[in-house]
Amino acid sequence: MTEEEIRSAVALAVEALREKNPMAPSITNTVTQDFVANAQLAVGGSAAMLYMPDECESIAKIAPAFYINMGTAMPFYAETLPRAAKALHENQTPWVLDPVGIGLASLRTEILKQLKIFKPSIVRGNASEIIALAKLWELIEDVGGQVRGVDSTEKVSSAKASAIELAKFTGGAVAVSGEEDFVTDGKEEIQCAGGSELFTKITGSGCALGGVMAVYAAVASPFIAALTATTMFNLAGIKAAAQAPKPASFKVNFLDNLYELKSAEVAENFRVVGSFENLFNGLFRSGYEN
Amino acid sequence: MTEEEIRSAVALAVEALREKNPMAPSITNTVTQDFVANAQLAVGGSAAMLYMPDECESIAKIAPAFYINMGTAMPFYAETLPRAAKALHENQTPWVLDPVGIGLASLRTEILKQLKIFKPSIVRGNASEIIALAKLWELIEDVGGQVRGVDSTEKVSSAKASAIELAKFTGGAVAVSGEEDFVTDGKEEIQCAGGSELFTKITGSGCALGGVMAVYAAVASPFIAALTATTMFNLAGIKAAAQAPKPASFKVNFLDNLYELKSAEVAENFRVVGSFENLFNGLFRSGYEN
Amino acid sequence: MTEEEIRSAVALAVEALREKNPMAPSITNTVTQDFVANAQLAVGGSAAMLYMPDECESIAKIAPAFYINMGTAMPFYAETLPRAAKALHENQTPWVLDPVGIGLASLRTEILKQLKIFKPSIVRGNASEIIALAKLWELIEDVGGQVRGVDSTEKVSSAKASAIELAKFTGGAVAVSGEEDFVTDGKEEIQCAGGSELFTKITGSGCALGGVMAVYAAVASPFIAALTATTMFNLAGIKAAAQAPKPASFKVNFLDNLYELKSAEVAENFRVVGSFENLFNGLFRSGYEN
Repeated sequence: MTEEEIRSAVALAVEALREKNPMAPSITNTVTQDFVANAQLAVGGSAAMLYMPDECESIAKIAPAFYINMGTAMPFYAETLPRAAKALHENQTPWVLDPVGIGLASLRTEILKQLKIFKPSIVRGNASEIIALAKLWELIEDVGGQVRGVDSTEKVSSAKASAIELAKFTGGAVAVSGEEDFVTDGKEEIQCAGGSELFTKITGSGCALGGVMAVYAAVASPFIAALTATTMFNLAGIKAAAQAPKPASFKVNFLDNLYELKSAEVAENFRVVGSFENLFNGLFRSGYEN
Repeated sequence: MTEEEIRSAVALAVEALREKNPMAPSITNTVTQDFVANAQLAVGGSAAMLYMPDECESIAKIAPAFYINMGTAMPFYAETLPRAAKALHENQTPWVLDPVGIGLASLRTEILKQLKIFKPSIVRGNASEIIALAKLWELIEDVGGQVRGVDSTEKVSSAKASAIELAKFTGGAVAVSGEEDFVTDGKEEIQCAGGSELFTKITGSGCALGGVMAVYAAVASPFIAALTATTMFNLAGIKAAAQAPKPASFKVNFLDNLYELKSAEVAENFRVVGSFENLFNGLFRSGYEN
Repeated sequence: MTEEEIRSAVALAVEALREKNPMAPSITNTVTQDFVANAQLAVGGSAAMLYMPDECESIAKIAPAFYINMGTAMPFYAETLPRAAKALHENQTPWVLDPVGIGLASLRTEILKQLKIFKPSIVRGNASEIIALAKLWELIEDVGGQVRGVDSTEKVSSAKASAIELAKFTGGAVAVSGEEDFVTDGKEEIQCAGGSELFTKITGSGCALGGVMAVYAAVASPFIAALTATTMFNLAGIKAAAQAPKPASFKVNFLDNLYELKSAEVAENFRVVGSFENLFNGLFRSGYEN
């Protein structure tokens, strides 16, 4: 895709979601479900959260997109997640995986291993989570290092290789959240600046971002969906922080801004760094941060 | 009841709840529990959410009212819901059923079938859910048609017959939420206009409405409770939308307005369309939408 | 500790938390997780909520502090809570117990009995809950009386003896929430006035308080952690109520104020009533309310 095509596809996704209101059901953590659902609704999508294995499987067969967030795993997740992911994969339904808390303990790790073969269309996480998932799925070499549950201890730049390998493996997109976000489909590479430090003072912005990617995945390719959602969050975050530099007001303003963003401004708010064809030729390497 | 009696009973319910602060415990979905509880508190009630079968059964025996929302069913609901509903029925405790997600899959359907004999005092749902419940309980003929989980694909007017049959069966009230809400006890029929399109841009207003009906059911008849809650929501919704036409601010303002509504304005904010005695004589039929 | 030492330790705790951002994981109820996490983040801590027995046990072994709130008990709590509490006790990790809903039914009571030997560093509750826990753990005589789930039917003053016995037994601190809060380590006694009636019109302020005590317990002694959190809530509550006397706006403003409080003002906003050495000599007794 040319840069022009990418920007135009993003603008189109913003508009298509508001027009079609597709529902992306979620299996997601109990802490941030309210925020995830309200973010999905604010951008024009529709939301439903589920737990039961049979329900998740049957709705996965008819939904246009789906969101799986490992967050607050419960015992029945051992059955629910693989059944839902299998149905999604078999129906070629786009789905987003947020491997929150990867490495915490055995059940979670076991489930995440099982999900590999069902290739999530989008993987979203902070740098630590993306690196940990690439290691768990043996897509990069595990040279040690620690993952600390839900907080990122790694810089975005250090997760680029993992993100690219994950995207190549799934054939979809990977988004790494951090001070400057990174979105790739294994070929194109986008940097998304913006956002606000205040995102670290409210809970669930990462989860909400994953949920919003899922609703966009119902109207756009995984790469465009990941990019559109990331850019929306950065832009709405900048505006909200300018309106009120306090966490709870920031959250209210953030959702209000998500609702009001214009497609044209979203389409301008990211930086196309280059494609890996160029990257691997070293032509653009000087522009990189790592 | 005369129209005058209905309006006066609504005003009384608004005041009685604020004075007595009764608690209506809930078994309700994890997505919107915060909103449900805050709405119950804003109107003067008290809230508690529970999951355990024994706890739900024992509190159902002493609570003045109860709320059951199928929302995010979990495996243990198979035991929790029937035991709670049985205890409520045996103790003649008013309870509200919100059949969210009816038809999604087998466990949920199975549980909803079992709840029939425990006759909920109030059934609340969107048009699709009310029609689906009336079909499931074999109160109207099933002539096909689809239900799409938590979103309504039907107009309120198309659910009137189902609502009336449900109310006649339970001996309680039924409220159908939509662009213009419909509340009936199987004899009286009320239209409640108001609200705001912004209710569709935040999650949980339907769940919160069910929870608020439950606290009113602790101080008023099922019919008056359903009507009072519906009218409060419509009125607070109108005011909140006028204050800020953005979803997250709307939600904050909506709860603030619920807290501040005067009993007199609530008592004036619905339209008594007629009673079915008249309806069946055809006298008022021209005034109906369906 | 002298009064001067207490005030200086509180100021230090406020600053240390903002500097170090420690995470206090929680096993806490689904209703108020969002509020708990956002309150923990607003004061400078970090949050993670968990359910799985193995995850809770393994994270309990490495976390600097932990929060256990009985709230919406689920069947697997029977395994999760004792395993987490045992790991916390064995690792001498400070942890906060909020015995919400004590006395509701058999599983919850059974679990709370088992937790006694793992001595929570801080017990937080309303007067009814603190009395009920002291009775359940046989630290005071059970002379009858009723507990009504999550609402307090007792005055703070009536729970002082129970609080003191609990603190002596655990070797930690106990905080009783009410119109005027009471914090003790079994020796020192502090009264914390402030807050707002509006706390009773929003859900979860007690849960959030427990969660905030847990993050402070990662940087201060249980007594100073309980006192700092209690004082922060009272002060932020006063300010928020002055800004907007409506529940949902109050909640937003409350979190914003938590984020902005200065350590110096927190350190001045409680009243050191005396220590029990004095108390038991009767010297200060005239200053007491009960």
